[in-house]
Amino acid sequence: MSVTSFYTGAPRHMVAVDCIIFGFENGQLKLLIVKRLPAPYHGAWSLMGGFVHDGESLNDAAARVLQVNTGLDNIYMDQLHCYGDVNRDTGGRVISVAYYALIRISEHLPQLSAEYDAHWLTLQEIPDLIFDHGQMITDALMKLRDKAHFHPIGFELLPEKFSLPQLRNLYEEIYQRPLDKRNFRKKILAMDILEKLDEKDKSTSKKGANLYRFDKSKYGELMQRGMVFEI
Amino acid sequence: MSVTSFYTGAPRHMVAVDCIIFGFENGQLKLLIVKRLPAPYHGAWSLMGGFVHDGESLNDAAARVLQVNTGLDNIYMDQLHCYGDVNRDTGGRVISVAYYALIRISEHLPQLSAEYDAHWLTLQEIPDLIFDHGQMITDALMKLRDKAHFHPIGFELLPEKFSLPQLRNLYEEIYQRPLDKRNFRKKILAMDILEKLDEKDKSTSKKGANLYRFDKSKYGELMQRGMVFEI
Repeated sequence: MSVTSFYTGAPRHMVAVDCIIFGFENGQLKLLIVKRLPAPYHGAWSLMGGFVHDGESLNDAAARVLQVNTGLDNIYMDQLHCYGDVNRDTGGRVISVAYYALIRISEHLPQLSAEYDAHWLTLQEIPDLIFDHGQMITDALMKLRDKAHFHPIGFELLPEKFSLPQLRNLYEEIYQRPLDKRNFRKKILAMDILEKLDEKDKSTSKKGANLYRFDKSKYGELMQRGMVFEI
Repeated sequence: MSVTSFYTGAPRHMVAVDCIIFGFENGQLKLLIVKRLPAPYHGAWSLMGGFVHDGESLNDAAARVLQVNTGLDNIYMDQLHCYGDVNRDTGGRVISVAYYALIRISEHLPQLSAEYDAHWLTLQEIPDLIFDHGQMITDALMKLRDKAHFHPIGFELLPEKFSLPQLRNLYEEIYQRPLDKRNFRKKILAMDILEKLDEKDKSTSKKGANLYRFDKSKYGELMQRGMVFEI
């Protein structure tokens, strides 16, 4: 068999990317969910997605879908899982590669595409979604929990300057359970990866809470010393 | 746009599955690597793989590739990652979903397909492989390490009855570093997930080493008590 005929005989499939987009706002973990305006599936709730083009890598397709629909680029994205059940898409056999993205809602005011009616919804507010998109969100939340435990990706969801209560609040949302205030403070400060700023957040108390910034170079030093990031 | 025309306009892609197959033999972690006999790529070293058929899920395709080429089924398999760079396959644009599988070499004598010249090779023995198959192995090893740390999947690689030195040896191979004998023994026995048998392995010493069996129901109890498996 020649190389050409080997490939010519192979079945072809539609391949899509779907994006699970996490944000953090007003102390709550949120997801960017859209009500589809274009046909088909007009009015259905879903994740943002699109077909993978010829001559386009999967990572590029995911970045394009995010950029076209929100105006954002240079966003933290990672592959979640490839979903390949034959009947997962009711309109035809589509294999979907899911990506999750972490967005700072406070910094970027997304220029949301007019094609979609997009909403930031809390986990509790998410309606039934088309296809297996609900399962994708469940899986993404598990992955976010696992990853945030040992990697400093939580900071991708916070504004550049944040208070320790804000940081703890974010982890409480990711883990969906309360964390002890004193232990959390002790643990995070012991890692020495935050830079304390001469500013205070006075939105929650008169005295105010110190603001901090995540210090990438200090985090690099922590890793070099063979220490483990763990929250 | 109708549902039909929405899908008709979508690009079609070849999709493959590739299998990273781990085994454990004579105290060494091994991988099942094949020298391709069929054209094209005759004589090239690669992972076992194949195209995803119409009407076949990704999981089913991976199980089929494993079954056809080794005669094995009911094997522990899990999805690793979906590889989608445009030029990863030199013969055409193929998106590949990689799966890793764990096999008990001692129990199953694989009926290896005549289509492939298959070899169990140690990590050190693996030659250069076609496409991005070398990267897939690197990624699979990282995933195996992460997963074996908190999930009892290591037992999938051992014979049903094993000694503690054998179990430690397996983890040393997975982590590629020596583990302290006494600490390992203490840690694994403290979890109370092994059943001690009235048999000994006398292959390595006159006195012999006690044989154990992994106890799934005890592991279930450990999980129910909210305890963590960690080796």
